Amino acid sequence: MSAPVAIVMGSQSDWPTMKHAAEALDALGVAHDCRIVSAHRTPARLVSFAEGAADEGFKVIIAGAGGAAHLPGMVAAMTHLPVLGVPVQSRALSGQDSLLSIVQMPGGVPVGTLAIGEAGAKNAGLLAAAVLATHDEALAERLKAYRAAQTQSVAERPVDSN
Amino acid sequence: MSAPVAIVMGSQSDWPTMKHAAEALDALGVAHDCRIVSAHRTPARLVSFAEGAADEGFKVIIAGAGGAAHLPGMVAAMTHLPVLGVPVQSRALSGQDSLLSIVQMPGGVPVGTLAIGEAGAKNAGLLAAAVLATHDEALAERLKAYRAAQTQSVAERPVDSN
Amino acid sequence: MSAPVAIVMGSQSDWPTMKHAAEALDALGVAHDCRIVSAHRTPARLVSFAEGAADEGFKVIIAGAGGAAHLPGMVAAMTHLPVLGVPVQSRALSGQDSLLSIVQMPGGVPVGTLAIGEAGAKNAGLLAAAVLATHDEALAERLKAYRAAQTQSVAERPVDSN
Amino acid sequence: MSAPVAIVMGSQSDWPTMKHAAEALDALGVAHDCRIVSAHRTPARLVSFAEGAADEGFKVIIAGAGGAAHLPGMVAAMTHLPVLGVPVQSRALSGQDSLLSIVQMPGGVPVGTLAIGEAGAKNAGLLAAAVLATHDEALAERLKAYRAAQTQSVAERPVDSN
Amino acid sequence: MSAPVAIVMGSQSDWPTMKHAAEALDALGVAHDCRIVSAHRTPARLVSFAEGAADEGFKVIIAGAGGAAHLPGMVAAMTHLPVLGVPVQSRALSGQDSLLSIVQMPGGVPVGTLAIGEAGAKNAGLLAAAVLATHDEALAERLKAYRAAQTQSVAERPVDSN
Amino acid sequence: MSAPVAIVMGSQSDWPTMKHAAEALDALGVAHDCRIVSAHRTPARLVSFAEGAADEGFKVIIAGAGGAAHLPGMVAAMTHLPVLGVPVQSRALSGQDSLLSIVQMPGGVPVGTLAIGEAGAKNAGLLAAAVLATHDEALAERLKAYRAAQTQSVAERPVDSN
Amino acid sequence: MSAPVAIVMGSQSDWPTMKHAAEALDALGVAHDCRIVSAHRTPARLVSFAEGAADEGFKVIIAGAGGAAHLPGMVAAMTHLPVLGVPVQSRALSGQDSLLSIVQMPGGVPVGTLAIGEAGAKNAGLLAAAVLATHDEALAERLKAYRAAQTQSVAERPVDSN
Amino acid sequence: MSAPVAIVMGSQSDWPTMKHAAEALDALGVAHDCRIVSAHRTPARLVSFAEGAADEGFKVIIAGAGGAAHLPGMVAAMTHLPVLGVPVQSRALSGQDSLLSIVQMPGGVPVGTLAIGEAGAKNAGLLAAAVLATHDEALAERLKAYRAAQTQSVAERPVDSN
Repeated sequence: MSAPVAIVMGSQSDWPTMKHAAEALDALGVAHDCRIVSAHRTPARLVSFAEGAADEGFKVIIAGAGGAAHLPGMVAAMTHLPVLGVPVQSRALSGQDSLLSIVQMPGGVPVGTLAIGEAGAKNAGLLAAAVLATHDEALAERLKAYRAAQTQSVAERPVDSN
Repeated sequence: MSAPVAIVMGSQSDWPTMKHAAEALDALGVAHDCRIVSAHRTPARLVSFAEGAADEGFKVIIAGAGGAAHLPGMVAAMTHLPVLGVPVQSRALSGQDSLLSIVQMPGGVPVGTLAIGEAGAKNAGLLAAAVLATHDEALAERLKAYRAAQTQSVAERPVDSN
Repeated sequence: MSAPVAIVMGSQSDWPTMKHAAEALDALGVAHDCRIVSAHRTPARLVSFAEGAADEGFKVIIAGAGGAAHLPGMVAAMTHLPVLGVPVQSRALSGQDSLLSIVQMPGGVPVGTLAIGEAGAKNAGLLAAAVLATHDEALAERLKAYRAAQTQSVAERPVDSN
Repeated sequence: MSAPVAIVMGSQSDWPTMKHAAEALDALGVAHDCRIVSAHRTPARLVSFAEGAADEGFKVIIAGAGGAAHLPGMVAAMTHLPVLGVPVQSRALSGQDSLLSIVQMPGGVPVGTLAIGEAGAKNAGLLAAAVLATHDEALAERLKAYRAAQTQSVAERPVDSN
Repeated sequence: MSAPVAIVMGSQSDWPTMKHAAEALDALGVAHDCRIVSAHRTPARLVSFAEGAADEGFKVIIAGAGGAAHLPGMVAAMTHLPVLGVPVQSRALSGQDSLLSIVQMPGGVPVGTLAIGEAGAKNAGLLAAAVLATHDEALAERLKAYRAAQTQSVAERPVDSN
Repeated sequence: MSAPVAIVMGSQSDWPTMKHAAEALDALGVAHDCRIVSAHRTPARLVSFAEGAADEGFKVIIAGAGGAAHLPGMVAAMTHLPVLGVPVQSRALSGQDSLLSIVQMPGGVPVGTLAIGEAGAKNAGLLAAAVLATHDEALAERLKAYRAAQTQSVAERPVDSN
Repeated sequence: MSAPVAIVMGSQSDWPTMKHAAEALDALGVAHDCRIVSAHRTPARLVSFAEGAADEGFKVIIAGAGGAAHLPGMVAAMTHLPVLGVPVQSRALSGQDSLLSIVQMPGGVPVGTLAIGEAGAKNAGLLAAAVLATHDEALAERLKAYRAAQTQSVAERPVDSN
Repeated sequence: MSAPVAIVMGSQSDWPTMKHAAEALDALGVAHDCRIVSAHRTPARLVSFAEGAADEGFKVIIAGAGGAAHLPGMVAAMTHLPVLGVPVQSRALSGQDSLLSIVQMPGGVPVGTLAIGEAGAKNAGLLAAAVLATHDEALAERLKAYRAAQTQSVAERPVDSN
């Protein structure tokens, strides 16, 4: 059976960011498939991936890109599956260009956008799991346990504060 | 049976924006429940809504707010359901404050953020439907038809261009 | 014979901006073909337009879009023709999102970007003509005459200044 | 007797910034209590802290957070005590997101916001002391002495300037 | 007896914004004194006001200004009283200049900054009251009642949503 | 025979960025001529270069500069040749000043602007080649081959992802 | 005898802003000469004006422009006279582009930049007068009187505040 | 005889930036006097410096500061001498706060603002010299020679470009 979540990214250089999405899904026991799909350098791969994603059995797509980050929006244009976008931090503009290029989609073609960088990638994994958990009670329980453990992990007081 | 989508917003003044989420869901035949929940003025209502949302039967939550827009993130902090955030256009900063307050969530608590304003609200409705459609084939078909009709509606040439 | 310049835009609402490109080309006697091609709502049209543009006989492509403006970059991804991008002024962010989405292209796929709004559209027309004029002496002369007339039209002193 | 000032922060990673608030209070002889309260990861702790702060005997609350910094505003939503907010410098956006998330509160629920980073944390300590000093003449004298010493410490000429 | 709160502003044109501070104080029964003090056009008045504010009996100072908004910071430089700053919305930059000029104070001289514009002015009034309420139980009760009424005033559902 | 492409830059410090334009042209077999022309420090050289560029045989001009980057626009003001602008990353503002100074040209004098920094410089070279290729079939073939090789070079999966 | 101050601007559309410079000089009895000099549309006029400004007898030059505002910097590149720059408010970016294009000059060629828009134009007139007043005692006295009158004109209290 | 140029700065930490103003003046043989004057920490020193600057014999004042940079504007408020402002690069916001705090002065009190950081400081020195040179022919000649040498120093071609 295919993985329910696809993680696509514009280039190898996005992987240090996007691996945090994979790790979050791993922690929740959600299978995923990671690919490089460059909207600009491999447009044919983009089309075949996006148009075929539903038939491949994917339920949710996570797409990360930087700069003029067109990958998430273009994937969303060619599938009815939910697409989550991760703005990768760019060199000159720190991801402000990535963020606006991903989030400011026109009415009709949504991309659910997460924070710039690693936190956003991790959260894309968690949100993809939450989407699947709407119809997977066991996953919902794992997600609740993950969140509870996260809450437990927060210390009461800052170290070195006294 | 309860509606699968909750649409919450920080104040009555957000409704002209957020009604576009409701209309998108209406167009796809997805029931929804609209409420005002102010993170800052009604924090107790926020807690009871967010903590009880799953038990109320909601599957997806759309939350819209402007300025220091804390509603989407605080709802996400208190539920494991997927939360979609809509930055409402603010007076002085045109929604840049709303956008950053919603999208820049820390790792661990995701909010899938849409565009500033009406387009974002409409897309929140569409994305909520796409989430539900991951496990509702009939809705998936309606979503595909909606997208196809949208594609059909785009004229070949701009009016007055010749 | 086909027109040498294609002017494409994401929606009818971009036409009041993009017509300034058409008018600049008209003023220089350069034929052009105006179409609506939405990267997000008509991705198949995008692919067939961009992949076929060279075979249709176009030499230069002008593409205008607003918000998460993916049209210019995606056209550039699928053609080797020079692509000029016009950021259309957006509602919430005044075109800052459009500008960054168009100009911040990754190395390998260029879009020559003009100013936000009408001035940028006009200049896209002029720059397309300048590109053609690199191998069309008559057009080069018309362009020089256009520029000379423009220089002549600048008054020496502001009206009402004395 | 309880401390009059609470210093809360979203995570351990905020402590290197927020300790400057503690140090400023130390310098003025004002007792304080430092805690980690994450609006997003420990929402129940947030509620119990904020609702109980007045009963615990706190007079002023300093809250620091970064990114989508909801802690100061959410504390302010659940207490009538004065809340001072410190935007912690974030990775991608240098604290611009933190600043806007804290300062752009809607009418009705104020957060007195200080500068981004260490200077802001130090000033939150000083401002908390100034608040207490409105009704504590001895503290007012210490504050005046602190300010006078600060004035004295400014050299007349830059070192190495001649 | 003198009023406990001074409201100063850089020019008459700031009054439509700053009157919201006065109205908030009126609603809470806190006396206040409104003056125009321009840091740039009346620097001597600035010095005499700021240096004499404590002796006049003021306990808290609210200062509003726009553009290169130096008034709040310069008042804070010359008094040990708590100073609250309100960035007035400016013409070209919508108050972003006002906000940064007020909030980015160096370590040592704090200004507690509120939101840009009317909401910020209203909140400055409420925060000034909260400061006074730290040592005025009756005012604390009025503030709690104000907040409770505010909570009550939030409708459950948006008008026209059904 | 002269080179068809001129690469000019404001100072030696721009060369580490602008050499990427030269390398892109080298890869495509397009001759080019690199010069330092400072709009501000060598205005006479600017005038003689820009006015004489067409007579020198240049077909396209690439101009890179940082900060208040006036070189591309001023060259464009004095030639009818197509001018491509590269915003060099600046120290304080990361090239946002360079970008706006280059792209926001008034109607009548276009500069086709590329991304900030090295990617933009590389793309300026590629776009200059694309301009020449509109009338050079052999170059068009080399450009298509370059793009095809680029597409081939994109791996299917991120290294270390499994 | 020639006027000591030249006021140049990029187009007629800058005059409603730049006339405030002329009015400030009028109020101080300083003669001035207003001209349209477009860096981009009339580069030859720019060169002849800037190179000849000292010989024409000008002592100070005020230059206003909007968007990619190159006029002030290019005038400064071709004269040793002090140049004051006024960023004219632009349509899309409210003058942020104008401001950065004028103020971010490289080391070696200064432009003393004033605020965006009318206030900046007025202040350019006042600063030009202050420059001349460094060696004109009568003008210095008029300037001091102007400033004193300005101070006098500030009311003590906002109208309608009581 | 006193120096004609005062260089003041908000703190010792501004000296590495501001020394470039001193060096530029040194290169032109213009005497100058460097002092630390903190608007916020030494307001009395600010008042005595600014009010006495003309009587001390200064002709031009250069003022540098960072963050909420009030020094240049406050000096300008208390003297009729020309004041030149240098925005020192700040930690979190890279000098954007410094720039806006200095340049966005209200109509009536001008500050001629230079670029952020070292280039701006150098240019403040050059502009101060240009101001003095309006009535000092020998200095004007030195300034012209300085500019000519600067022009000479620009190489024709980038090193390593061939």
